Amino acid sequence: MKNLINHVDNVLAESLDGFAAAHADILVLGEEREFVRRKDIKPGKVALISGGGAGHEPLHAGFVGHGMLDAACPGQIFTSPTPNQMLNAAQAVDGGAGVLFIVKNYSGDMMNFEMAAEMLDQDNAMVIVNDDVAVENSTHTTGRRGVAGTLIVEKILGAAAERGDNLGQLKALGDAVNKATASMGVALTSCTVPAAGKPTFQISAGDMEVGVGIHGEPGRRRVPLASADAIAAELTGAVIKDLSLKAGQEVILLVNGFGGTPMLELYLMVNAARKVLGAAGIEPVRYLTGSYVTSLEMAGCSITVTVADAEILALWDAAVHTSALRWGM
Amino acid sequence: MKNLINHVDNVLAESLDGFAAAHADILVLGEEREFVRRKDIKPGKVALISGGGAGHEPLHAGFVGHGMLDAACPGQIFTSPTPNQMLNAAQAVDGGAGVLFIVKNYSGDMMNFEMAAEMLDQDNAMVIVNDDVAVENSTHTTGRRGVAGTLIVEKILGAAAERGDNLGQLKALGDAVNKATASMGVALTSCTVPAAGKPTFQISAGDMEVGVGIHGEPGRRRVPLASADAIAAELTGAVIKDLSLKAGQEVILLVNGFGGTPMLELYLMVNAARKVLGAAGIEPVRYLTGSYVTSLEMAGCSITVTVADAEILALWDAAVHTSALRWGM
Repeated sequence: MKNLINHVDNVLAESLDGFAAAHADILVLGEEREFVRRKDIKPGKVALISGGGAGHEPLHAGFVGHGMLDAACPGQIFTSPTPNQMLNAAQAVDGGAGVLFIVKNYSGDMMNFEMAAEMLDQDNAMVIVNDDVAVENSTHTTGRRGVAGTLIVEKILGAAAERGDNLGQLKALGDAVNKATASMGVALTSCTVPAAGKPTFQISAGDMEVGVGIHGEPGRRRVPLASADAIAAELTGAVIKDLSLKAGQEVILLVNGFGGTPMLELYLMVNAARKVLGAAGIEPVRYLTGSYVTSLEMAGCSITVTVADAEILALWDAAVHTSALRWGM
Repeated sequence: MKNLINHVDNVLAESLDGFAAAHADILVLGEEREFVRRKDIKPGKVALISGGGAGHEPLHAGFVGHGMLDAACPGQIFTSPTPNQMLNAAQAVDGGAGVLFIVKNYSGDMMNFEMAAEMLDQDNAMVIVNDDVAVENSTHTTGRRGVAGTLIVEKILGAAAERGDNLGQLKALGDAVNKATASMGVALTSCTVPAAGKPTFQISAGDMEVGVGIHGEPGRRRVPLASADAIAAELTGAVIKDLSLKAGQEVILLVNGFGGTPMLELYLMVNAARKVLGAAGIEPVRYLTGSYVTSLEMAGCSITVTVADAEILALWDAAVHTSALRWGM
């Protein structure tokens, strides 16, 4: 793998500097690059903080701004941020109404965010996202992994925090949205962490990894590459089953690229997933398509579905102004 | 290369169907999928139409909507659309004030858009974008190629059309923005057109193609992969020279990914390009970073700079609502 970098040790730092310069209208880089935070702190609003290893951009820093996150703590590539980063971010963005951590379920992230939450000494400090239906336990995780559905939890909680929900309400809503959200992905290629210098996993030219995690963790099975329709049937089918979706239900459909898959193919997958949902009488009423929760340059995609009632849709539609997701302002 | 597709013959059609379904709030797919057009036609507004081969998504269909294009005509992957597509699109979106074609300078696109323009029998029917400073003539082009700067021309003309500029004014503004815009790119890998089944060009594991075109056309030279800073110095330096930029000037900086390069690296390139511009006393006052004018899954990026006066900035900042670029609404 070839990268546009200077030195493997400085990739994250230099990237954050460019990111902060490009989006100086909405965000600020914290001291020692421990976190990215919203430029304008809103007093009286619960502060939402997420974070995790780099390499999944635009997640999470790309979702810092009005109507979504107040801060994001980036770790090195595929490496958890430290509890100190989280605490310093909390101190920087706490508007007096408390802090809520939104955490993808990975062992390292969980351990560090739990430590930070304990030090915060506050009830209802964490929402855990575990939307990946592919496998029950995984390389870096006990229980289900948190993947692209994290974006949906962050968007909906961000809108709810912006309208003034308190910490207890946000914690309950976050748990509910996580429960209403399911994802599953497929990888066609691996990815290479620059500091490692070799692919995270090996996959032959004719195979795909069904149920892959966003760090290239093994999924359900390694099989020959299938058609888009067959892949969509398996991924969407698993999601429908997990959520026990019934005909007549409305959903948000997120087709997420892992980084190396062109938009042309992602929209083709939207078409394929729509057919599967349609056949089950399920209607996507909102769509989001793009590479939002990535694994560096990995080729492949995931399909995420969130059951949407009127409240969820109103919160989804609410104004958001981040570097990666923006509407209504 | 592995793709998320069903059959190589149906890639574009199925992708367009997914695209139109996902963005039914803002656009409509024309009959026989000849074009994508804005859902709401604005009477009395000059209609802006672009198009070109698929494989560069989100360009151009991703820029159809309020404040940007009225229609986009997609050809098959890296293949020009036909004059008939352009004429039918023109008929569908003409609000009575005429039609302006925005055309990237490639021989096939030029021939077909010129034919369509002749059949329109209207003055000032075309703005030609040729922002690529890398080479004077190229595999598919006489004169300089049109690349990522096309996005900037489309955004600024879209805003000007929305405020009510007439055809002559838009033609003059488009030519001026094109002249004020320069780009140059680098490829680290090739890309594979699904129907071809093999990489468009060969590049060894340690090399890069400096000055590459967006179909993988050769650039200035094939050399060993350099550091991000060295690449930024060459690309940004070429752009500064072409535009004869002077200390104190303000610019829009677009760091555009070709498809296979992670956001992490694109922002690192933003940081690198900023340093080069800063050393020359040139200040980016607006940034856009992402994979907007792509070459399927090619790894690499381009740097585009547009000289920005107050009018250009106001038009850049004006509200836009397309699937790929959205702000202010």
